[in-house]
Amino acid sequence: MSPQSFREKLIAAWERSGSLLCVGLDPDPAKLPLADVADFNIKIIEATADLVCAYKPNVAFYEALGPERGYAALRKTLAAIPPHIVTIADAKRGDVAHTARAYVTAIFDDLGFDAATVNPYLGADSIEPWVERPEKGAIVVCRTSNPGGGDLQDLRVQTVGGARPLYEIVAERARAWDRHGNVGLVAGATYPGEMRRLRELCAEMPFLVPGIGAQRSRRHGAGRRREAEGGERVIEGDAERSSDLSVHAICGVGRRVGRTARGATPLHYTDAVGA
Amino acid sequence: MSPQSFREKLIAAWERSGSLLCVGLDPDPAKLPLADVADFNIKIIEATADLVCAYKPNVAFYEALGPERGYAALRKTLAAIPPHIVTIADAKRGDVAHTARAYVTAIFDDLGFDAATVNPYLGADSIEPWVERPEKGAIVVCRTSNPGGGDLQDLRVQTVGGARPLYEIVAERARAWDRHGNVGLVAGATYPGEMRRLRELCAEMPFLVPGIGAQRSRRHGAGRRREAEGGERVIEGDAERSSDLSVHAICGVGRRVGRTARGATPLHYTDAVGA
Repeated sequence: MSPQSFREKLIAAWERSGSLLCVGLDPDPAKLPLADVADFNIKIIEATADLVCAYKPNVAFYEALGPERGYAALRKTLAAIPPHIVTIADAKRGDVAHTARAYVTAIFDDLGFDAATVNPYLGADSIEPWVERPEKGAIVVCRTSNPGGGDLQDLRVQTVGGARPLYEIVAERARAWDRHGNVGLVAGATYPGEMRRLRELCAEMPFLVPGIGAQRSRRHGAGRRREAEGGERVIEGDAERSSDLSVHAICGVGRRVGRTARGATPLHYTDAVGA
Repeated sequence: MSPQSFREKLIAAWERSGSLLCVGLDPDPAKLPLADVADFNIKIIEATADLVCAYKPNVAFYEALGPERGYAALRKTLAAIPPHIVTIADAKRGDVAHTARAYVTAIFDDLGFDAATVNPYLGADSIEPWVERPEKGAIVVCRTSNPGGGDLQDLRVQTVGGARPLYEIVAERARAWDRHGNVGLVAGATYPGEMRRLRELCAEMPFLVPGIGAQRSRRHGAGRRREAEGGERVIEGDAERSSDLSVHAICGVGRRVGRTARGATPLHYTDAVGA
């Protein structure tokens, strides 16, 4: 029997949780209410594990602790995540094939992540090591919603069908790289039309959508919460980061969820296009 | 007195060594003649320190050892590099500003590198944390010579002056980001015309040029060596990697060197355009 594919694991996690929510685990020690990063993460995981389909540590925040200490905390964090929940290394790695394989060894084999975010700028052979194993997922950075996101991503590229933004070309490349159904897109689209267009290009792909909302940590007082309403307009701006919970969504066409963190406030989050 | 700028350190390293050579430290434990990665690196450093202007560990190969162990070996390696030699973290990081700052903390402050390679796909605010300190360098990935390097980098972008390849636009952005003279380019140009064009766009920048040559490790027998002759055609194909020494050059306009690793074979390396 072949192992569970990344796609199967993601679908199972969606169905079990009834949730598209992906919680970032991006600790900033200066803001943590607990001295130990892993202990803090574990409390977040315990409080949210039934409400999310995925956790997404951004490795930068662990490297910033001093990489030896930080990766030890990350490893301890990962061990506390229930095995049915998808783990995404937000690493945005991008390097030539030989080097990409070294990153794959670190992130998939040594740390045991289910998926990673990857940068497309170095092209097909830099992505291949990430996508060749169906049980692991590669989420290609396509359109980001940071202030400089459009500097390159919105450049108009000449194609036989006319000029198109670079991020659309990246989406098409990602589709071509997706032989095993294990490729996704980081789709922090700022305008609803962009998200619709990406859905047209990559109908079946999971989209990692940043900035759906943020919930302040207990230290800062609970309850500040932003919500994304259904329909096209799902982006509420950048999530608060640091010890805040940065909440992303992983969208699939036609998927809905009816509640958000802690179940208190219905989110009525709807996939941007599919629903 | 302000601290030595990155540019001043690089120029001093060029002048002291009479060399543009930058040796990669990319260990593959399966190929190492010594059990300990740091011990192996230290032997390389001892054998080459008078012949190079820079060392460039690619962090992927340390993360692949298990990041806790790998970064400890990297830290021990860095401690063995004489302080006048430039250290470049080949990390190709690229993330939004808040996250880029965490990477900067790890690579510049905690590990103490002089410079890092960075990926431009997320735009200006993702680069800003890398370039805002004159004593540290940011080497922007612009044109890479891997098989997929052209997949995005060669796309024709519409500009007011006509269609131009994406990598040229990246070079121009890098110039705009370079307020402190501490920005460089990864310029693995495959064709001499590309390198000349990048020099026209960024006349004053240091270029990190991969694949100038490779020398096999002692285990594989010494002496296999490829050389790049002067003039336009500096790229000899991808360097052999792993425990091989991957030799790059850091070019500045008009700079020449007259010898290469171990001094045995004159390289007559000449900057692609400037000399």
